[in-house]
Amino acid sequence: MGFIQGYDDLPMNWVGDWAGRRAALTPNRTALYDSFTQRSYTFRDMNERACRVGTYLSDVLGLRKGDVIALICRNRIEAIDIYLACGKLGIILAPLSQRLKKPELEDLLARLQPSALVHEHLFAELVASLSVPASVRSLIDMDNEQSFFENVILKTDAREVNVPLAMSDICLYVHTGGTTAVPKICIVSHRQMVWNAVDILAIGLVGAYGTVLITFPFFHIGGWNTFTPLFYAGITGILMREFNPGLMLELIHAGRVENFGAVEAMLQFLIAHPKFGETDFSKLKAITTAAAPCSKAVMQVFLDKGIPISQTYGMTEAGPSNFAYIPRSDSLEELLTYSTSIGTSMFHCDAKIVDPESRQDVAPGETGVLCLRSPHNFDGYLHDPARTEKVIDQDGWIYTGDLAERDRDGLVFIKGRADNMFISGGENISPEEIEQALAKHPAIAGAICAGIPDPKWGQVPVALVVFHAGGSATEEELKAFCRDYLADYKVPKQIRPVAELPLTGAGKLNRNAVVTYYAGGG
Amino acid sequence: MGFIQGYDDLPMNWVGDWAGRRAALTPNRTALYDSFTQRSYTFRDMNERACRVGTYLSDVLGLRKGDVIALICRNRIEAIDIYLACGKLGIILAPLSQRLKKPELEDLLARLQPSALVHEHLFAELVASLSVPASVRSLIDMDNEQSFFENVILKTDAREVNVPLAMSDICLYVHTGGTTAVPKICIVSHRQMVWNAVDILAIGLVGAYGTVLITFPFFHIGGWNTFTPLFYAGITGILMREFNPGLMLELIHAGRVENFGAVEAMLQFLIAHPKFGETDFSKLKAITTAAAPCSKAVMQVFLDKGIPISQTYGMTEAGPSNFAYIPRSDSLEELLTYSTSIGTSMFHCDAKIVDPESRQDVAPGETGVLCLRSPHNFDGYLHDPARTEKVIDQDGWIYTGDLAERDRDGLVFIKGRADNMFISGGENISPEEIEQALAKHPAIAGAICAGIPDPKWGQVPVALVVFHAGGSATEEELKAFCRDYLADYKVPKQIRPVAELPLTGAGKLNRNAVVTYYAGGG
Repeated sequence: MGFIQGYDDLPMNWVGDWAGRRAALTPNRTALYDSFTQRSYTFRDMNERACRVGTYLSDVLGLRKGDVIALICRNRIEAIDIYLACGKLGIILAPLSQRLKKPELEDLLARLQPSALVHEHLFAELVASLSVPASVRSLIDMDNEQSFFENVILKTDAREVNVPLAMSDICLYVHTGGTTAVPKICIVSHRQMVWNAVDILAIGLVGAYGTVLITFPFFHIGGWNTFTPLFYAGITGILMREFNPGLMLELIHAGRVENFGAVEAMLQFLIAHPKFGETDFSKLKAITTAAAPCSKAVMQVFLDKGIPISQTYGMTEAGPSNFAYIPRSDSLEELLTYSTSIGTSMFHCDAKIVDPESRQDVAPGETGVLCLRSPHNFDGYLHDPARTEKVIDQDGWIYTGDLAERDRDGLVFIKGRADNMFISGGENISPEEIEQALAKHPAIAGAICAGIPDPKWGQVPVALVVFHAGGSATEEELKAFCRDYLADYKVPKQIRPVAELPLTGAGKLNRNAVVTYYAGGG
Repeated sequence: MGFIQGYDDLPMNWVGDWAGRRAALTPNRTALYDSFTQRSYTFRDMNERACRVGTYLSDVLGLRKGDVIALICRNRIEAIDIYLACGKLGIILAPLSQRLKKPELEDLLARLQPSALVHEHLFAELVASLSVPASVRSLIDMDNEQSFFENVILKTDAREVNVPLAMSDICLYVHTGGTTAVPKICIVSHRQMVWNAVDILAIGLVGAYGTVLITFPFFHIGGWNTFTPLFYAGITGILMREFNPGLMLELIHAGRVENFGAVEAMLQFLIAHPKFGETDFSKLKAITTAAAPCSKAVMQVFLDKGIPISQTYGMTEAGPSNFAYIPRSDSLEELLTYSTSIGTSMFHCDAKIVDPESRQDVAPGETGVLCLRSPHNFDGYLHDPARTEKVIDQDGWIYTGDLAERDRDGLVFIKGRADNMFISGGENISPEEIEQALAKHPAIAGAICAGIPDPKWGQVPVALVVFHAGGSATEEELKAFCRDYLADYKVPKQIRPVAELPLTGAGKLNRNAVVTYYAGGG
């Protein structure tokens, strides 16, 4: 349409140059506080470091646009330096989790074919144990005896290394675990990083805060997608090398943290920490949670301190930030009422909920698979077009595999995984939803649900439950209890107590075992 | 690169649907306060109105994506309703200035070929006088005796009319006056509107405010580019039907305005207004100026009240917002020191300053032509590829025609128009810069400068000045004065007093007459 054919493919100087742009706009503002060294860095400082690192990568290591650097490093400022330098040069950063085992790392390295492998000295033994592909021309221990990063890389005479990049150029290769054996490698473009930062800014998730704590690791996209929007918006990021509840409480107590994102487990660690009771939370303005709804019990602890806590939702392939619950009032009560809602999709993110078979939109109140489309879509799985095509269609819709329901106000609730879904009388049923309802019963310690064949309905839900020590309830009592939370067709036809829930080898709920259990007559 | 080829061309639901997205995110927040009716509208209200208008446009008028609506209307909520409805449907809005004369309007309508022409009753006589092209199937007087907009259009039963649009789809046709006879029509894509809103949000120009007054008319892109970023960010816009200094002071006094953008003349009207002295400015947090640097005298009036005032810069073709001066400290003194700087280019906007002949970058401190490149580039002039190609090149750089200089800190200063530039000893000289320096002399009421042929330097600057009544200064005194403000090569070789500055027929400075004057020996 336009004079230029496709701005997505037009190289521009600002693309990837987060450091240079912010240093030009707000050079003197504080970009980062590193809680480990207790040092603060301005945007000018960060850009100068990125220029030095970039010059080293380019002029000493000879790396060019499209080359790959693999990185094994906790949340250190040096990881940010490398990320910002790669953004200037168009080098693709592939952060690898230090929690992976040797075979997984070797598999990933073989598929990534990096030109350089950079790691913390802490992981030198792990790295030394690896068969590294021949593509790796430079293997750098950041903090060897010479303190290489500090004394060599950061001492490089900087030149302006920034090159124009297109938004369609690749920024990161991010591995995602998932439940399958072989980790997937997501291709994350600059477009994805830019638009996710834009979306987080647009809905006001960070703009209201002066300082935000980075809680997620840099080997997940969540880490970079916390850092990047903050840096983009000129907000101070607070760095922890790794999740540490005691340190986190100290930083909150010192008034350094106005906001952070977390998974519920992190909040549980905070609450359980001996320092929790004496921590001054007065500067902490809000918390967002991700990955799964936070329990009301945990929410209540923070709401009692006047700190709003609300849910977000996303996945590496589509975001990583796609939904957020934006409070519609100042009432903390509202947050409890909608504690299980992920809210609405972000400004630049289309969402639809479709029947998994027909792929047609379902009505409000009906369960279907959540599909997402936005400029922060990922660019597919590396070297895996078949898997890519299963996840994204030609219209740009990403099939999340998550079951969701939209209420009449447009608020969305996650119901479970489509893989677990079964159909009863034409209605989609998510076993997770039934398990969650049963778990609310005071006598129940755990529940598992599945669909079993039924001549009339096709399938019907059944469940197994484990009681707390001393707890008990009759089957009829439990069904009656379920009716308070679930539509009638979702209430299990049979509920039996067992001593232990059946698990898979990987420790997840084994719903096939439930089918077998009931097929055998119990 | 990606799986999807070009996100710029990918239809998405959110593109153009400002109203629907904001209504989903923050339905209950106040989107608009209309100072004429003294009514407030939530984002839900605005979306409902846009859906009704959209249904009318689609189902009653039969308008479709790509059709054009011409609009002659002051800054009324109905103009916003139509804009938001067009965004849902992909209809192109062409706002026309009510200040244009019959031949100019007829010329524009002939080139736009609109399907509908909508106007305020106030301009019914003007519209009735026009020869309207045959393309116009619907001619709508918004507030005829039946109050058509209120009683018919807004009573339409709404359905969800939003269609997916690509960012490359056209949003607006905006005419720009310029200095040439035939108005140009800029093609403004949704991409341009989206990215300019993003850029304004990213650099913090609006995010810090709860309410912003819309001062620029909707027949300029400046009006839409004030409204859209506010609406996008969920901030309350304050509407005036047209610029009215008394009303503006009332709104400020009532605490309804935390921020506004203005040209200096508006500020002068405010200062000159009888209500100015008694106005309570305590809720007004900041002012930005556009179009040309604000004089220090006018700035000082607001700085004395503790209100920061800083410059922005842009042009319809490239922005319209491209530069902003972001204060580097809390000191109001800094703003005076840099009062003539337009600051740095926005986050997503590349800028370079090039020699007008070689098109190579000039060094800091040297004058050249400012060129801009961003995703908020325009898409060319309607039906005028020749003129388009003169303004934008294949790499996406837009040649602004403005002379600029960058200091060693990266701050940019506008020096004049390239059309007026001349070269002396290989150095680019802007006559405007010299005229501004001379005008600072207390005896001088006005100055005009031009380059005349010189055997040694190619050209040298000369000037004519007009003294204030009773004022005078010798040529040597004036040259010495200039040396305090200008590099030696910019100091005029000759400066003569005249009774009147030579003007063109259009009332602009006639620099050719200066050349003739000196060629004739004075």
